[in-house]
Amino acid sequence: MLKEAVFHTNDIPYLFTVGEHRVKIRIRAKRGEVFNCVLFYSDRYKPPGSGSSIQLELAGSTELHDYFEGVVYSANNRLRYLFLLSGYDGSQVWCGEYGVSESRQAAGYFHCASISAADEGIPPSWVQDAVVYQIFPERFANGNPANNPQGVRSWTSEEAVERDSFYGGDILGIIEKLPYLHNLGINVIYLTPVFESTSNHKYNTTDYYSVDPHFGTLVELKLLVEKAHSLNMKVVFDAVFNHAGDKFFAFQDVMEHGESSEYKDWFFVNEFPIVQAPSPSYESFGIHSPTMPKLNTRNPEVVQYLLEVAKYWIHEVGIDGWRLDVANEIDHSFWRLLRHEIKAIDRELLLVGEIMHQSGPWLRGDQFDGVMNYLLRDTMIDFFAKQTITARFFVGQLESIRMQYTDSANAAMFNLIGSHDTERFLTACSHSVWGWNEKQETERLKLASVFQLTYTGMPMIYYGDEVGMTGGEDPHCRKPMVWDEEKQDISLFTHYKQLITIRKENSALRSGEFKLWFVQEAHNMFGFIRFNSAQRIGIILNNSPNVQELHVDSPEGIDVQSVHVLFGDNSVRWVDGKVTGVLPSYSASILILN
Amino acid sequence: MLKEAVFHTNDIPYLFTVGEHRVKIRIRAKRGEVFNCVLFYSDRYKPPGSGSSIQLELAGSTELHDYFEGVVYSANNRLRYLFLLSGYDGSQVWCGEYGVSESRQAAGYFHCASISAADEGIPPSWVQDAVVYQIFPERFANGNPANNPQGVRSWTSEEAVERDSFYGGDILGIIEKLPYLHNLGINVIYLTPVFESTSNHKYNTTDYYSVDPHFGTLVELKLLVEKAHSLNMKVVFDAVFNHAGDKFFAFQDVMEHGESSEYKDWFFVNEFPIVQAPSPSYESFGIHSPTMPKLNTRNPEVVQYLLEVAKYWIHEVGIDGWRLDVANEIDHSFWRLLRHEIKAIDRELLLVGEIMHQSGPWLRGDQFDGVMNYLLRDTMIDFFAKQTITARFFVGQLESIRMQYTDSANAAMFNLIGSHDTERFLTACSHSVWGWNEKQETERLKLASVFQLTYTGMPMIYYGDEVGMTGGEDPHCRKPMVWDEEKQDISLFTHYKQLITIRKENSALRSGEFKLWFVQEAHNMFGFIRFNSAQRIGIILNNSPNVQELHVDSPEGIDVQSVHVLFGDNSVRWVDGKVTGVLPSYSASILILN
Repeated sequence: MLKEAVFHTNDIPYLFTVGEHRVKIRIRAKRGEVFNCVLFYSDRYKPPGSGSSIQLELAGSTELHDYFEGVVYSANNRLRYLFLLSGYDGSQVWCGEYGVSESRQAAGYFHCASISAADEGIPPSWVQDAVVYQIFPERFANGNPANNPQGVRSWTSEEAVERDSFYGGDILGIIEKLPYLHNLGINVIYLTPVFESTSNHKYNTTDYYSVDPHFGTLVELKLLVEKAHSLNMKVVFDAVFNHAGDKFFAFQDVMEHGESSEYKDWFFVNEFPIVQAPSPSYESFGIHSPTMPKLNTRNPEVVQYLLEVAKYWIHEVGIDGWRLDVANEIDHSFWRLLRHEIKAIDRELLLVGEIMHQSGPWLRGDQFDGVMNYLLRDTMIDFFAKQTITARFFVGQLESIRMQYTDSANAAMFNLIGSHDTERFLTACSHSVWGWNEKQETERLKLASVFQLTYTGMPMIYYGDEVGMTGGEDPHCRKPMVWDEEKQDISLFTHYKQLITIRKENSALRSGEFKLWFVQEAHNMFGFIRFNSAQRIGIILNNSPNVQELHVDSPEGIDVQSVHVLFGDNSVRWVDGKVTGVLPSYSASILILN
Repeated sequence: MLKEAVFHTNDIPYLFTVGEHRVKIRIRAKRGEVFNCVLFYSDRYKPPGSGSSIQLELAGSTELHDYFEGVVYSANNRLRYLFLLSGYDGSQVWCGEYGVSESRQAAGYFHCASISAADEGIPPSWVQDAVVYQIFPERFANGNPANNPQGVRSWTSEEAVERDSFYGGDILGIIEKLPYLHNLGINVIYLTPVFESTSNHKYNTTDYYSVDPHFGTLVELKLLVEKAHSLNMKVVFDAVFNHAGDKFFAFQDVMEHGESSEYKDWFFVNEFPIVQAPSPSYESFGIHSPTMPKLNTRNPEVVQYLLEVAKYWIHEVGIDGWRLDVANEIDHSFWRLLRHEIKAIDRELLLVGEIMHQSGPWLRGDQFDGVMNYLLRDTMIDFFAKQTITARFFVGQLESIRMQYTDSANAAMFNLIGSHDTERFLTACSHSVWGWNEKQETERLKLASVFQLTYTGMPMIYYGDEVGMTGGEDPHCRKPMVWDEEKQDISLFTHYKQLITIRKENSALRSGEFKLWFVQEAHNMFGFIRFNSAQRIGIILNNSPNVQELHVDSPEGIDVQSVHVLFGDNSVRWVDGKVTGVLPSYSASILILN
């Protein structure tokens, strides 16, 4: 057995709490080498031999590794443990804190002595039921033409969207469309920023305490949250704390008074006086964004100012959480303080960071509940839209992402297919190596959304995807929402609505465990199950242009008597101990396994 | 190349800051497979191909793995990076956030976007110069017989120490012996608890705000710290926050008033009324310690109480830091708060946790500066005292420990050979598989202390080890200090003093980089170097009963013209491009490499 590939540490994500006195323990080994993995554990103060053991289960496989996990109960939160791995080659190795060894003595014990609820970073209870909808307010609906910016374009203009276009979307528009979202099944809306700002996207904040006048008024914003709540919908706002806008009062003061400004340490000024062109004399967001001066979150005054902002909107309008912009470019210590203050108000408030990459350092329970799951989005695009990776690789990436995080973090992910920062799915399909076929593109989006809406975490729909909107990268992914039903893809809307209903009606899809069922690499097909004590649901995805015949054994360890088709071709049934039937091209089957 | 053995995450300890804008990046691979490892990096907002690359260096090898590391500068703290590993077998693989792959595209990039001083967890600047001495006050020196407990034993009693023996050691005794410690070269003293308590060890605190009357008075405690400071010695106290003593006012209140006590949630009471025998009806330290009820550090009142205690003694007597007892059985969130409050007083205050095992979760910069390095102690005992492991294995364990932590944490370790909780080195020698030989034991302790005093981190000497004290596990390792010079091993004292002087006079030994030089497995010998921009020092240890001839090439990449013997046999010199000479049995050589 490859001892060099075995990995465990007594730390997240290889060890984490999953409830009072319960800890999940995970270990990694080379794929396909270990046929049995046993965990020996006991109170750390008891003599060796006085403990218990459990068999760890194969929780997932990536391209290179198998992950085994199990949950142990520790009455007094003090654990000593070690692993025994048995290989298909007949070898046995122990894994403990001294290393991986044939000798139990030489391996030593791992110790985990601090399993406490205080460290769990439990997300809000509602995340498991959430179906999120992302709204870019300037482009979602125009409810009040009176607050339109000057030079606003026609909502249905055929012109290509420009970076500085305005269309007049506003808060009243969102309020008017709440019934539409409610009808679709949405129960969480996430709004990109709504505070006063000179741009259409509002990521360069002028005033953190004012509603942008082109979006509406404080009264309207309160009404939006109130109406949403009355429809059992949560509302999450977008906090831009990495940088302010250049019209922000503090930055204006620095521009005016230079080194003598009392706000000079609120930013990272390289040279006085401030110049904005040809290149800014201060740190800003990205490479060249003079309108977005970076805020100095090492300065306690800035920290205090931003924490007050975060609390103000919770108290003032009753939002249910924050999505935190450019979260990975701000100190961990700032986020820890933010979590401490926000969760002290209400543990049911959500904190989701915008991090487009591996997010482990922020998802340890002390900072965010979850992140915008761009790693998942990228691999969904590769598999379903661009078709550049196969089913086996896709499934491996799923596991690779899940195994980076705790169960809590995985449950609190915003699982998006697209956002205001990416090209839309249907447009990404044009990059498929297999060419363009409009009918297929829609089927593939339907297939991807079946996956998204049956997977762990919070599915998040970017406005308009559900009616077939297209668009390349920013600004083209930010077209005005298509409200003309003639131009909406109603079959797609109906599909989304149906899938959301299925998710809502089946608890295993919302909060059940995830387990791979099978991969048929040749047919680019795979299946997985979601299960809890109440039900087992199988999901099978045929990501190929061909009709595929199904002859699949029941998932390992699960006794099946019959299947009930929740979604997909009705031909699928349980015959002679197999799931049997036909899957049309680019289609999915959702089955209750009775 | 074994892709399965390659490991990196964008997180501690594989990525951490080492100063403003500087980040150290570390990657692990199977031992002996990779001959070259290159890191490509750039600003994360710049297009691919616009960045830089550096060659990572082999930083250390464990039994199974090689670790490569390098430091990159990031002007704006935003990094995108990936690794290219070239194997001796001719293969090349990329490692990025999507995985390890022959394809650069498939590997993706890692991102690290938050490199900031706020997250560094910088330890006090003085740790690099520290030579620490641990004192168990009841057994160090009796300066004031008037405060002796009743039934005190004679200091020089031949009777075996019992768990409840008292000898009368006190604060005045420590004050009187400060010149002794100063003469030895000590500049930090760590005292086990000094607060009011019924036991001799004082780990069951009765009153966190009072000096134990048998130890002395507040005035004396202040005098001790003042006198120590006047000798340029720091003083570190011991905080027992995991549990209180059963005479602690709050626990007394719960014993008296049961469920109606306002302190009932300060503890974990399983059943009222409180009973202490036959087994306590409440959670306590360890398996059966009715006098040590566990404190509920999830209760904000308890948190507040303990934080106030921690701050009180800093303000009241001016201590320089805390050693935190049973640190791994208390919530991380409590330690984060403690660090936040203590470091706000003064960043030069030290926080060291008592954790006897892998301590990664506590050494991320947000909790402790360092821990009691029992992992190192255990492997030193195995190698030098018990002789159960070979030089190669010992060196592998050293690297395994260092590679678990950041540079900051490694610098802030209390590197002990023994403590009040372990048998003493000379006694551990009796477990050597090679039998007992008193002369050799002392030589082996000298050898171990050469290692300890030339290695990274803070060497910590347990009182009396420096004069040859023996003793098995608690209580036998807690004998009264031997002050009778006839019974002290003066050669050992002189040795310690000499080594401390050498450490103090050579900056590379205090704060230089560590690198392995060579291992001669057959002769159980190894060498390492400590180096900085000012000097390179080679340390060679012969852990064998035989005289060994030396013929060693200069360390890789280091050009040597001559050597200067700082310590050890004067025969050693630089001849024909080699370090040449003779090392007596169980001896060491410390050489300046010019």
